[in-house]
Amino acid sequence: MYSDYEFLKVEPGADRVLRITMNRPEKLNASGEIGHAEQGRIWREFDADPEMNVALITGAGRAFCAGGDIKEGNGPLPVDTRDGRALVRNMIACRKPIVSAINGVAVGGGLAIALLADISIASERAVLIDGHVRLGLAAGDHAALVWPLAIGMARSKYHLLLGNRITGREAAEIGLVGTCVPHEDLMPTANEIATRLAEGPQFAIQGTKAALNDWYLHNIGIFEHSLYVEALSATLPDAEAGIRAVREGTEPEFPGAVNSDRY
Amino acid sequence: MYSDYEFLKVEPGADRVLRITMNRPEKLNASGEIGHAEQGRIWREFDADPEMNVALITGAGRAFCAGGDIKEGNGPLPVDTRDGRALVRNMIACRKPIVSAINGVAVGGGLAIALLADISIASERAVLIDGHVRLGLAAGDHAALVWPLAIGMARSKYHLLLGNRITGREAAEIGLVGTCVPHEDLMPTANEIATRLAEGPQFAIQGTKAALNDWYLHNIGIFEHSLYVEALSATLPDAEAGIRAVREGTEPEFPGAVNSDRY
Amino acid sequence: MYSDYEFLKVEPGADRVLRITMNRPEKLNASGEIGHAEQGRIWREFDADPEMNVALITGAGRAFCAGGDIKEGNGPLPVDTRDGRALVRNMIACRKPIVSAINGVAVGGGLAIALLADISIASERAVLIDGHVRLGLAAGDHAALVWPLAIGMARSKYHLLLGNRITGREAAEIGLVGTCVPHEDLMPTANEIATRLAEGPQFAIQGTKAALNDWYLHNIGIFEHSLYVEALSATLPDAEAGIRAVREGTEPEFPGAVNSDRY
Amino acid sequence: MYSDYEFLKVEPGADRVLRITMNRPEKLNASGEIGHAEQGRIWREFDADPEMNVALITGAGRAFCAGGDIKEGNGPLPVDTRDGRALVRNMIACRKPIVSAINGVAVGGGLAIALLADISIASERAVLIDGHVRLGLAAGDHAALVWPLAIGMARSKYHLLLGNRITGREAAEIGLVGTCVPHEDLMPTANEIATRLAEGPQFAIQGTKAALNDWYLHNIGIFEHSLYVEALSATLPDAEAGIRAVREGTEPEFPGAVNSDRY
Amino acid sequence: MYSDYEFLKVEPGADRVLRITMNRPEKLNASGEIGHAEQGRIWREFDADPEMNVALITGAGRAFCAGGDIKEGNGPLPVDTRDGRALVRNMIACRKPIVSAINGVAVGGGLAIALLADISIASERAVLIDGHVRLGLAAGDHAALVWPLAIGMARSKYHLLLGNRITGREAAEIGLVGTCVPHEDLMPTANEIATRLAEGPQFAIQGTKAALNDWYLHNIGIFEHSLYVEALSATLPDAEAGIRAVREGTEPEFPGAVNSDRY
Amino acid sequence: MYSDYEFLKVEPGADRVLRITMNRPEKLNASGEIGHAEQGRIWREFDADPEMNVALITGAGRAFCAGGDIKEGNGPLPVDTRDGRALVRNMIACRKPIVSAINGVAVGGGLAIALLADISIASERAVLIDGHVRLGLAAGDHAALVWPLAIGMARSKYHLLLGNRITGREAAEIGLVGTCVPHEDLMPTANEIATRLAEGPQFAIQGTKAALNDWYLHNIGIFEHSLYVEALSATLPDAEAGIRAVREGTEPEFPGAVNSDRY
Repeated sequence: MYSDYEFLKVEPGADRVLRITMNRPEKLNASGEIGHAEQGRIWREFDADPEMNVALITGAGRAFCAGGDIKEGNGPLPVDTRDGRALVRNMIACRKPIVSAINGVAVGGGLAIALLADISIASERAVLIDGHVRLGLAAGDHAALVWPLAIGMARSKYHLLLGNRITGREAAEIGLVGTCVPHEDLMPTANEIATRLAEGPQFAIQGTKAALNDWYLHNIGIFEHSLYVEALSATLPDAEAGIRAVREGTEPEFPGAVNSDRY
Repeated sequence: MYSDYEFLKVEPGADRVLRITMNRPEKLNASGEIGHAEQGRIWREFDADPEMNVALITGAGRAFCAGGDIKEGNGPLPVDTRDGRALVRNMIACRKPIVSAINGVAVGGGLAIALLADISIASERAVLIDGHVRLGLAAGDHAALVWPLAIGMARSKYHLLLGNRITGREAAEIGLVGTCVPHEDLMPTANEIATRLAEGPQFAIQGTKAALNDWYLHNIGIFEHSLYVEALSATLPDAEAGIRAVREGTEPEFPGAVNSDRY
Repeated sequence: MYSDYEFLKVEPGADRVLRITMNRPEKLNASGEIGHAEQGRIWREFDADPEMNVALITGAGRAFCAGGDIKEGNGPLPVDTRDGRALVRNMIACRKPIVSAINGVAVGGGLAIALLADISIASERAVLIDGHVRLGLAAGDHAALVWPLAIGMARSKYHLLLGNRITGREAAEIGLVGTCVPHEDLMPTANEIATRLAEGPQFAIQGTKAALNDWYLHNIGIFEHSLYVEALSATLPDAEAGIRAVREGTEPEFPGAVNSDRY
Repeated sequence: MYSDYEFLKVEPGADRVLRITMNRPEKLNASGEIGHAEQGRIWREFDADPEMNVALITGAGRAFCAGGDIKEGNGPLPVDTRDGRALVRNMIACRKPIVSAINGVAVGGGLAIALLADISIASERAVLIDGHVRLGLAAGDHAALVWPLAIGMARSKYHLLLGNRITGREAAEIGLVGTCVPHEDLMPTANEIATRLAEGPQFAIQGTKAALNDWYLHNIGIFEHSLYVEALSATLPDAEAGIRAVREGTEPEFPGAVNSDRY
Repeated sequence: MYSDYEFLKVEPGADRVLRITMNRPEKLNASGEIGHAEQGRIWREFDADPEMNVALITGAGRAFCAGGDIKEGNGPLPVDTRDGRALVRNMIACRKPIVSAINGVAVGGGLAIALLADISIASERAVLIDGHVRLGLAAGDHAALVWPLAIGMARSKYHLLLGNRITGREAAEIGLVGTCVPHEDLMPTANEIATRLAEGPQFAIQGTKAALNDWYLHNIGIFEHSLYVEALSATLPDAEAGIRAVREGTEPEFPGAVNSDRY
Repeated sequence: MYSDYEFLKVEPGADRVLRITMNRPEKLNASGEIGHAEQGRIWREFDADPEMNVALITGAGRAFCAGGDIKEGNGPLPVDTRDGRALVRNMIACRKPIVSAINGVAVGGGLAIALLADISIASERAVLIDGHVRLGLAAGDHAALVWPLAIGMARSKYHLLLGNRITGREAAEIGLVGTCVPHEDLMPTANEIATRLAEGPQFAIQGTKAALNDWYLHNIGIFEHSLYVEALSATLPDAEAGIRAVREGTEPEFPGAVNSDRY
């Protein structure tokens, strides 16, 4: 099992913890097309693996995951709805607990993984950014579903519409992640928690997670709404302008700031 | 457009920001019947105006808005369900983002506007009070829908049942507003945010708002429940006692504290 | 009325406050079978009592309530679904406001009462623990319904899956309770709030509570899910191991840590 | 038990079936204030009675229940929200199955009982009418919650807005009741079904009912909305006109047909 | 008022009924870009008109409305999400009752109007077709929200996935419309119902409609999901093939029948 | 692919239709432990197979599927929650359309498959029975989620609480299946529909299905409630009595008909 992953390094442990590393550190673990697909399908394989109880995911090097690799063109493409949808729905549907150790910057699909994990642990060096709007895209992969139920509506809109940077410390203070620890404690803490969960009563743990996740499913139309409105936004000139600006390191000028009522 | 407003001062900007001021400072911007109607219908006109991208609302003088003008009799009347309903539903249905700059006291319908805005920015001088219960009324205009999804159920009941004063600072700490800034920074911050949003990718911004607002619509029956139970409470002796006490500056004695099982 | 209670001391006050004390201090107010049934049915009697407006519940001695009396065998039995279900659904259905004064440790059914109260006031000596998972049980009595809407999903999973101790102070900071006060202020504060509510406009107060509680009912399937998945978990070997460990004061070894995919 | 009922005849059977008869045949079993209260509280007593498994309710004489006794003044009064709410919520919350034998006309609160029963059996002589709108009232006791989930939205609006008469046969054909039988078979069929249920596996039956009823609770805000909008409509001139017309046997002229935008 | 409509003929009546006719009979009332926009905004103007109580909409000539005018290019364009969204959300948000007299074929946006009306009356000559899938589009304008709550899930999927023709008679039998009448009775029946509603108690009627429509809003994310997944489908080759086939009168060959896992 | 199935015969077609046959005709296709597991996992494999667009499932011989093989002991065991849950959730989560050709009796898990298919086609020889209650079990695998949204609440309770037999013809008339055809037309019709879907625009078809299925997910807690209350009912004496009666061909006597208030 797990032999056919490129972007992810997947290591089944004797302690029943499946350690997953997003492993393209030279690109801040930004995912190209292959990586994005792997981010979606790993959860079903983990869920079906009778040897593994808990998944622990982190990023190699300085970053957790910088999202889609916009510079390589894996940005706002139609293909995204398939893989982005798989990522969100498979993490929610997964019976087994997932721990994220957010070691650095988490953006886009990387942020989705960080926050859809059941136990999210941020390093003090973590930086969480939902950058969709700055790219000219609607916030479509997880945020509309996950954020209001984590930090409330007022803060969700404040951060999502403005694309604010949120440090690991602040994320813990507002409830976006479970806890924040000094950077050197991140992996020890995450491993300790993952191991403890793996030694625990699995049916009880899985049942507790499943009941809590009903909150997401009872509102899953919101996720789908956001997913496809993002996909549509990706076909409009604003996305082109936003992505070009990122590639060129300039400030975007959005044509859709004028005559927006045409859409 | 916007020529027929009395209570509101409505100023379309060249920067595509519609600046709206509740403008009856001698009454702390309390709204009489006309003002209450304007508070409900402005959002549809803004939404339909192809020139404006963002609305920014604040209050003239010391207050944001002291709610209905109880002393003039625009308190708990049946007419309120029409205008109060329009205010809440039109703000939620509005595609475009709304920013509130909460410059002072916000009560009743004023508080509803402050908190239904997508980006709520409180001055350190802001004071937020949902005073329904103290008036003998059920909390009916926005709170039952908005507060639990902003600050959680425990805090919502604590503040709503007891009618507590919440400062701008505390509101930011518990997530009832997006942020709190020193008073002198309020309007600069609000204008900077509104302008930035107006220059942004409108379809993406509107789509993000719309997906987030599904959380409200998925539970809209709760708002309607609260709206009409307030309207019914306004026909009972407790409301008479509560409102008389406010007018006379005394402590209310609620007849409905005894034999409440009759209702 | 209220003459047939053993575990609960029930005192109707002239101030229309029904004071309820979990009264088995030598067992930290752990409830045996009789007590658990009383914890479920008291709310319907209170609700039907035309003389009482508000209930105020606390624990005798050092503890609020240590949950089911596992050492006496009133742990994970089928009978629990009847009484546990009554406790949760009757507290939610109760029209009248309930105040909890959390004077010490609150666990299991005791924690459910503490947090399903409309106004939850914690002493600085309070300690809140949802210990289900440590016992090998799914978190089934109130938490899956109540916690995400109080403290958000990230914190809910963090605390529920790991069975963390939460102090009264921290509970107030994250919004799990309405407020936290120094221990000596607990009962004065709780009595002041209860009395104030009892003198208030009952229809308005009850209507406000009812509208807010729609949030629970709109997701009641989540509670039922958690209730019966707990009941099923109680029939599995993990629960036996977990409860034995508590009785013996040892660390549990959960057989369900291996081959969990059988369930 | 059951000794203090006037309007209802309540007969506990040795077969564990509680037979309940609305018993004011000279008034077509229209309920005055006392009767309406009994229609609400009987379900809690039945639910708590360890000897009874199933309730079977019908009407004495020609009618099932003609609703509130408008001619005696027990029509649209504030008190209705208390008792009408109890009726609907207690029938939904009741763990045990309820069978209605709809022997004739069923209107208002009578119709609510007929259709909130778990097994509704109509005689060919049954006539079901939700007459709220004809009385100038919003349809507030059960219909907005129950009808769309029974017969769909198109039919619900068609019948509720127009106040159509629906025969027992038609009610069965569109799914508003479980079945329709010839009049002489009504009580034998109802008794056979009630007895069969009473001999069945009670936990399984109750659990099946409870899971199905989650559909109602997941949308309970709709019921509350309709309940209080009806209560408010009862304070408006249209209700006065509608009720006067019924009392006088004339066609109503609704003042609210003009200037309706005032509300 | 109503002077600036081209596609719609709008006639305010002295009987407080606003008669609206889709009026492009030579094209079976297919709407081009202008018509589609009018189909969305008329409901807000009607809602705000204090003189009108009820809207009655039908089609000129043989058809009710053949949907978007695919042959003129007003088919699956991005602009559709704006107007299609307005149509659906404004009809649901409209306080006042809407009657549709379905005189012939109803497709696409025309079908949405026919079925989002509160009272839908079909002629025996009516034919209802949701043709999205045949065009290579997801069924996105109203069906995913409206059909399951009208005719159930099994029938909804059966008809929507296969794009079946449904006659007016069958539509009435399965509950997709309120009733079906012989063609010559259609307008007399529709006018009689509209007039009766217009003479009725408007607050009660509007309140009943509003409570029932909460069912839609509680699931509005489903509509948005379907709307934007349709919009995305319109950017894919299948839509091009489907629309070309309609224009050319041939059978489509969908490239997306192969390699569909790419999306 | 598909090589490791025993109970299911799985045949990938060149027409992109995956034909699945429950293949144990000598037992009326009752599933033992292996078969039940296969009924749950096949949908994920189908969903991930890039060559297949549509699944078509039927039963070998006279029956569609008689449910769990009670006589072999694969009845109400804890293991059921794993496989039963997988069956229901995987069918709902499956992007691709599933067609069921209900050729004979469909009970238990077989009925779940028949009705969770997107297009359900019944033979005139089909007989649908949800027999849970007769076995002493709560109706837990699909019915509480699926039936109310197909045939309405009144009919759902009528049939589920009484365990009625429903013929294919009646199932089509009440909307429990999409259509009913003469037995000899069953497989031709099913194949024609499956082939037509497989040649259709897959993204559009999948998107339409997904939006409709949000209705299930928005209420998924109801399914989970029913699943685990069934699992708990399986541990009680009633289930033992019910299953023994089936095995012995006698009428069950349920001990839980008395003292049911203990649970």
